Amino acid sequence: MFRHVLLMTVRPDARPAEVKGLVEALRGLPAQIPEILSYRVGEDLGLRDDNATLALVGEFADERAWRTYLAHPAHRAVVTEHVEPVVAARQSVQFIAD
Amino acid sequence: MFRHVLLMTVRPDARPAEVKGLVEALRGLPAQIPEILSYRVGEDLGLRDDNATLALVGEFADERAWRTYLAHPAHRAVVTEHVEPVVAARQSVQFIAD
Repeated sequence: MFRHVLLMTVRPDARPAEVKGLVEALRGLPAQIPEILSYRVGEDLGLRDDNATLALVGEFADERAWRTYLAHPAHRAVVTEHVEPVVAARQSVQFIAD
Repeated sequence: MFRHVLLMTVRPDARPAEVKGLVEALRGLPAQIPEILSYRVGEDLGLRDDNATLALVGEFADERAWRTYLAHPAHRAVVTEHVEPVVAARQSVQFIAD
């Protein structure tokens, strides 16, 4: 299984409603992008200092499916309309694990 | 489900054998720590610039189980013997998602 893990840190001035909007928009993607096999998004619980704000854990059949997801119009729209306006930093890893 | 997502970036001078040792040591934890419900660790595939080196995605029943895992001697040993010697930066998120 091809796994995509993304941590995002939102800008300090991001409004809670914007963060919620981002989470909901991401959670709406599996219904629009069949290549997504599993997709979990959540806001950090605040249990540790220096944590990021949001995590996304996605599963895809392979790299090609992941790239189809990245290029999909629905994903592009979420990046443009929700991620870029409020996310200050992102870091990801893609890895293969059963 | 309580989800723990951790991205680690290893030091530039970390030897491949050290990184492999870290991955294997982490993958050995579920057999020693019953609170771990699911635990996937992998090295980044190098598909994007600025990615971290390793990702860990763990699932626990709740926060208490996660804290038992964090305090467990087997986990503490992996942190001391494998993570601290080679990891330059870490960032995590804990979140609740079905």
